[in-house]
Amino acid sequence: MTKLTVKTDKREELREITSEIQRAVDAAGISDGICHLYVPHTTAAVLIQEADDPAVGRDIVTHLRRLFPRDATYEHNDGNADAHMKATMVGTTATVFIEQGKLCLGTWQGIFFCEFDGPRTRELWVRVHG
Amino acid sequence: MTKLTVKTDKREELREITSEIQRAVDAAGISDGICHLYVPHTTAAVLIQEADDPAVGRDIVTHLRRLFPRDATYEHNDGNADAHMKATMVGTTATVFIEQGKLCLGTWQGIFFCEFDGPRTRELWVRVHG
Amino acid sequence: MTKLTVKTDKREELREITSEIQRAVDAAGISDGICHLYVPHTTAAVLIQEADDPAVGRDIVTHLRRLFPRDATYEHNDGNADAHMKATMVGTTATVFIEQGKLCLGTWQGIFFCEFDGPRTRELWVRVHG
Repeated sequence: MTKLTVKTDKREELREITSEIQRAVDAAGISDGICHLYVPHTTAAVLIQEADDPAVGRDIVTHLRRLFPRDATYEHNDGNADAHMKATMVGTTATVFIEQGKLCLGTWQGIFFCEFDGPRTRELWVRVHG
Repeated sequence: MTKLTVKTDKREELREITSEIQRAVDAAGISDGICHLYVPHTTAAVLIQEADDPAVGRDIVTHLRRLFPRDATYEHNDGNADAHMKATMVGTTATVFIEQGKLCLGTWQGIFFCEFDGPRTRELWVRVHG
Repeated sequence: MTKLTVKTDKREELREITSEIQRAVDAAGISDGICHLYVPHTTAAVLIQEADDPAVGRDIVTHLRRLFPRDATYEHNDGNADAHMKATMVGTTATVFIEQGKLCLGTWQGIFFCEFDGPRTRELWVRVHG
């Protein structure tokens, strides 16, 4: 697998990583296949969403915060239980097709690393199968 | 990959596409493997859920609408920020096993295209690996 | 595929099944590949989340219950519409990488079967591809 490093700047943010993942696909040298994405963290996630307007990512952060306030009552008392909830909602695995060496994304789609308990240095793992 | 066309009739609806996906599996001629599903849109999703009672799909539409009202405050101002939120919650990729040429679904399961900003003509992409 | 049996004790609980899945990987005898997980139910899910503190799983149960109360208004009238909603939010498929015969999980991650309408005897399906 390829381990990408993602440095996040805020406690919560969506950071587009489409071009980093495309580079991992390029390096694998596979023209036709599947790209598997995996986030090895419990307070972060991977999401395929709209990449044209950064406001969409900010809305996702804002509205997940509304559903899971950091100061709600949680049993897990590390101060980041809200982040576990948000990561659970978005998910830590995704799959993208590859054709002619390129990630097959819809017109408006990009791939985002979702940070919910940063800033941190994170990893996203990539495997490409031909 | 096979690109299925899905025409939706309403702004929000779950439309069962199990038989269309089974036909794509049949056409691929693979008896044992994995079927990968991918929605190339940012306001739609794919979901494996109960296919017996259509009320389940209506409940999903209703309760996602309750969590993410269309007229809530969003920064993304295309009038469909709620649809991006709903698609984020449900997800755009899924994987189903294939044995003896058939999709392996649980007794009550079907595969649904989830429209959150229709009506539109949409695509669902399918790849089958043996 | 390997069909694991999961017996749940409560209506709603997260039950860690990492070691059962590792045994299925061991039995498949594949040292390098992908492990696909599939829940063939409509009121249960599979989740990769923090395995160190069981409070995280209890928070997930509690806060999903807050978002989707069992006694809210639903059209599906089997008394488990809330469980369909919760399973929809968490999801029924996931993918984990395998290297040197071991599931590649992050430091704090475990794999959980999420029961939302138990107690029942459930299945989780596993396929390993080399």
